[in-house]
Amino acid sequence: MKRAPIVAIVGPAEADAPTLHAAEDVGAGLAIAGLTLVTGGLGGVMEAASRGARSKLGSTIGILPGEDPDEANGWVELPIATGLGEGRNALLVRLASAVLAIGGGYGTLSEIALALKAGKPVVGLGTWDVHGVEQVSTAEAAVERIVALSSH
Amino acid sequence: MKRAPIVAIVGPAEADAPTLHAAEDVGAGLAIAGLTLVTGGLGGVMEAASRGARSKLGSTIGILPGEDPDEANGWVELPIATGLGEGRNALLVRLASAVLAIGGGYGTLSEIALALKAGKPVVGLGTWDVHGVEQVSTAEAAVERIVALSSH
Amino acid sequence: MKRAPIVAIVGPAEADAPTLHAAEDVGAGLAIAGLTLVTGGLGGVMEAASRGARSKLGSTIGILPGEDPDEANGWVELPIATGLGEGRNALLVRLASAVLAIGGGYGTLSEIALALKAGKPVVGLGTWDVHGVEQVSTAEAAVERIVALSSH
Amino acid sequence: MKRAPIVAIVGPAEADAPTLHAAEDVGAGLAIAGLTLVTGGLGGVMEAASRGARSKLGSTIGILPGEDPDEANGWVELPIATGLGEGRNALLVRLASAVLAIGGGYGTLSEIALALKAGKPVVGLGTWDVHGVEQVSTAEAAVERIVALSSH
Repeated sequence: MKRAPIVAIVGPAEADAPTLHAAEDVGAGLAIAGLTLVTGGLGGVMEAASRGARSKLGSTIGILPGEDPDEANGWVELPIATGLGEGRNALLVRLASAVLAIGGGYGTLSEIALALKAGKPVVGLGTWDVHGVEQVSTAEAAVERIVALSSH
Repeated sequence: MKRAPIVAIVGPAEADAPTLHAAEDVGAGLAIAGLTLVTGGLGGVMEAASRGARSKLGSTIGILPGEDPDEANGWVELPIATGLGEGRNALLVRLASAVLAIGGGYGTLSEIALALKAGKPVVGLGTWDVHGVEQVSTAEAAVERIVALSSH
Repeated sequence: MKRAPIVAIVGPAEADAPTLHAAEDVGAGLAIAGLTLVTGGLGGVMEAASRGARSKLGSTIGILPGEDPDEANGWVELPIATGLGEGRNALLVRLASAVLAIGGGYGTLSEIALALKAGKPVVGLGTWDVHGVEQVSTAEAAVERIVALSSH
Repeated sequence: MKRAPIVAIVGPAEADAPTLHAAEDVGAGLAIAGLTLVTGGLGGVMEAASRGARSKLGSTIGILPGEDPDEANGWVELPIATGLGEGRNALLVRLASAVLAIGGGYGTLSEIALALKAGKPVVGLGTWDVHGVEQVSTAEAAVERIVALSSH
């Protein structure tokens, strides 16, 4: 049995232009590598990453906090409306074999912590400096590390 | 934006041969109609329905109770390991625009009730006799009704 | 270590006067027996049962679907705002050593099914006729059976 | 209507002796102030804080990750077995009007982040240095701040 590896990009719903640009580049790079992308399904980094993935025909999943799948951004192929609120963050990171955090915000910090708690490898790009996160400084490096980590 | 309609087949992990045969036929019929199938991802009716869908190149999602995606049967393309236990039943029915219940069991009864509570149309094939469920007697009739209801 | 046994009363947010009267009587009876009462925390049967329990100095817990503890009725001492929506029903029945269902509604049916699935004893008073539920016809009988079952 | 204010102490299941001692002191201090204590219900900081609270006749709630209430430490009066895994962290912080983090660990970091995301005041004692957390250096100061913040 063969299932496409899933990787997560986590990041805030509001971010500056360079952060969004990086998220889109990483989403595209992961799609080119054949990885399925899961995000929190909303705006900002989540939307930019999903848009990047779709621009390269990648698959995109959105794990939404609310009960309405229409809250997903337009680049999410499969919206999962969990109704769990921020509790959905624990579910999101569990789906992924590796997690990339881009940008800040407390929701993103909770996802970094939950991923590390679950033993998932976490790569950071312009995000919280937490012990255990492998920090990179470019979108290219982020793609390279996530691809390597997801193949385990 | 266009997303594939998702429909759910709910039923027990253990069932007799005619029930499993019906579940497989319905899964195949729904795939032919272009619908994405979501189930609880485990054995019995869930596995038979997923196998039927895959036999016609349909897409299959499994909403698992545990934390391990490998608990999914082999016909599930996308396993979502929720870690919610039976609480995953509420999430499962929320994903679907229509629900087909095949066979019995208390888990299935809870899914029927949660679907009706959420205002989803529910079709029954050899299942609990609950007010609000539209009962049918053949796999063909089940496919026909679910296809009609999912287009709303 | 000794913890007070917890029992659940589940029932709809809207019910007729005799049903509400029965719920209040049962709540009072369970409190006299020294049992802690857990309900869904909202109105109707949930509120009547909680009021009955408080009228006899009993302890009351409310497992709420939303994120706001102030949604609890005034007779709930300890509101647990789960933010899980109807998914809270699975959590509610898990807390109880025995479950009493009073009146109808799909939410109540889901709680009966989830309780039976979890192996909890379920007593019914004017509720769904589900195999495995022990039906009684008076508030007195309901109290007697729940007290007996909770002592296991 | 008057409900006892609930405050949370979050911290790891394993900690050194000074950390556990501080947790016990804080638990006792909060109980003296009449606050109900909620923790994750397991060992380490959670157990020490609960023991401290009980030593002063305080009320203690444990929000457990698993489905078994007997996983709670012996000082938890009311164990809530959520079956949500680490997803229970979001539920835990939502119950509290203020959160005290003692010691480290990724689970604790996720709780700090989820609390800040939910707009709850967070006090830290020997814990992660996260923007938005009010750091204190003694158990006495921690009690004083939590009491002040919970009265809002």
